[in-house]
Amino acid sequence: MSKLEEFRTFREKMNERILSAENLAIRRFFALDSRVYENGALDSKTKELLGLVASLVLRCDDCITYHVVRCLEEGVTDEEAFEAFSVGLVVGGSIVIPHLRRAVATLDQLRA
Amino acid sequence: MSKLEEFRTFREKMNERILSAENLAIRRFFALDSRVYENGALDSKTKELLGLVASLVLRCDDCITYHVVRCLEEGVTDEEAFEAFSVGLVVGGSIVIPHLRRAVATLDQLRA
Amino acid sequence: MSKLEEFRTFREKMNERILSAENLAIRRFFALDSRVYENGALDSKTKELLGLVASLVLRCDDCITYHVVRCLEEGVTDEEAFEAFSVGLVVGGSIVIPHLRRAVATLDQLRA
Amino acid sequence: MSKLEEFRTFREKMNERILSAENLAIRRFFALDSRVYENGALDSKTKELLGLVASLVLRCDDCITYHVVRCLEEGVTDEEAFEAFSVGLVVGGSIVIPHLRRAVATLDQLRA
Amino acid sequence: MSKLEEFRTFREKMNERILSAENLAIRRFFALDSRVYENGALDSKTKELLGLVASLVLRCDDCITYHVVRCLEEGVTDEEAFEAFSVGLVVGGSIVIPHLRRAVATLDQLRA
Amino acid sequence: MSKLEEFRTFREKMNERILSAENLAIRRFFALDSRVYENGALDSKTKELLGLVASLVLRCDDCITYHVVRCLEEGVTDEEAFEAFSVGLVVGGSIVIPHLRRAVATLDQLRA
Repeated sequence: MSKLEEFRTFREKMNERILSAENLAIRRFFALDSRVYENGALDSKTKELLGLVASLVLRCDDCITYHVVRCLEEGVTDEEAFEAFSVGLVVGGSIVIPHLRRAVATLDQLRA
Repeated sequence: MSKLEEFRTFREKMNERILSAENLAIRRFFALDSRVYENGALDSKTKELLGLVASLVLRCDDCITYHVVRCLEEGVTDEEAFEAFSVGLVVGGSIVIPHLRRAVATLDQLRA
Repeated sequence: MSKLEEFRTFREKMNERILSAENLAIRRFFALDSRVYENGALDSKTKELLGLVASLVLRCDDCITYHVVRCLEEGVTDEEAFEAFSVGLVVGGSIVIPHLRRAVATLDQLRA
Repeated sequence: MSKLEEFRTFREKMNERILSAENLAIRRFFALDSRVYENGALDSKTKELLGLVASLVLRCDDCITYHVVRCLEEGVTDEEAFEAFSVGLVVGGSIVIPHLRRAVATLDQLRA
Repeated sequence: MSKLEEFRTFREKMNERILSAENLAIRRFFALDSRVYENGALDSKTKELLGLVASLVLRCDDCITYHVVRCLEEGVTDEEAFEAFSVGLVVGGSIVIPHLRRAVATLDQLRA
Repeated sequence: MSKLEEFRTFREKMNERILSAENLAIRRFFALDSRVYENGALDSKTKELLGLVASLVLRCDDCITYHVVRCLEEGVTDEEAFEAFSVGLVVGGSIVIPHLRRAVATLDQLRA
């Protein structure tokens, strides 16, 4: 199983487990976390790019993987992705680089 | 002098002072920091929104102020700005709220 | 107007302004942010202490002020507050100290 | 060897190695890091919950694992743990979610 | 009273207040925080530069002010300070810039 | 292949991939990231220690590994490394400890 597949399986399994816990605040947060990227005044593509750069500067690998997957689904090109990466890199500094390496590896794996 | 004007004056004065220090790495970083928001595969408006959300989740008030100013210059509407804010809020959590308050105050001051 | 009063006035005014913006995601987040500190399996006092320490290690002065106010309303003693501070200090390190100074100043102002 | 066991073995081995290095400041910090969770005005259970939420919002997986283990030893129930998680999630935002997934996986593994 | 003088006065007053609270863990942390910058295998000047860059990338203005003061006392030149700043800027990214502006303003005020 | 070797191989491969992407801002950032640690008013050894402590407090394992390798190349002794670690630990708090464990494991592996 590839790393990407492992991530998806674990993510799905644990999301189900967490939502089964009957904690209303957590459930509502999860619902909100989906809703916020839906089409609105800004389209989903732009919002996924916002989520990607936010995840990059906060250096959350799983979040980056998720938003790279979603960005490609929304039709983001490699050139657009790298420009988003460049904003994240300049805002967040060299500590972003290890996460950038993994983001690009995920991007290449998804394109392959 | 309003807070916004104070920010602009101090920012301009200190940028000049810093760039006069003849530290090549810092000068290059400042040049890069301008360049990265220029039109490319993604347009300036989208990039400024990326910079805004990155600043929001990293909770940097001066950076937020700068990008709110730039977003309005790029024609971002209030509805678009609030959707960008909502992504930043959900990604970054309730600790973003005090910065959101100041961001909206800046937005209102600029519109007035 | 004291700093504490300024904080309360600005907080209330901007919360109203933000909630008037008709952004559903932001409204729901604000509702969730209140709900999460309500009595449940853990009581409000414990949850406010959790919010206080989380705010301290994330170094959000306005959040710290808010939770110090709420902790005192929930009957937290000075000795309990300082033990919560000590956990935040050891987890978050010396960069927490400037925020600890302001937290204690707020505590003293509220007791006075 | 399970991930949890790997964590314990590596943690114990490296703590010994670090404390053998004769760096007094590091030794004192480690002593302080134990002391701060001891019973006092706040009991150990509350302090471990504080440590758990602080670790969650700072997104430190090893710290979360350690405090989940300690919380269960102090008699924290699943419902209490999830309420602590919900505070961490709302304060820290969606970037906490990947860590929450691993925290719940650890909790389930310890209960099994 | 200048901002720098205000910082010193508040810092001294609140440190006294905090240390008077009879919380042993906090007292020990404060003692450790002084000790760690003393001459050892690395000299105080190098350690203060380490403290300065750590404060810069963590974006703690009061910590930066303190270490700029201490660096100058240890004989750090402007050229050395700017090279330390450049490391902090590249590691921490453009969100460091507002703190860099204030750090340089403090440096200039201390030299004047 | 050891973890250290894996890190080096992945780092080199992905750096090449990223620099081949023809994104000028990213290329310039990478160039700047090398330049900033070169001998100047501060020598490379001091600058690598600055990079190490910055990486430690920002809790970036790959960055820490890189700077531990470079510090040893610059002749940093174990005693000096542990003093740098102690500064990072006190500034950044107990959440630094898991990264400290891995840093010391890397140091030991490189010395072996």
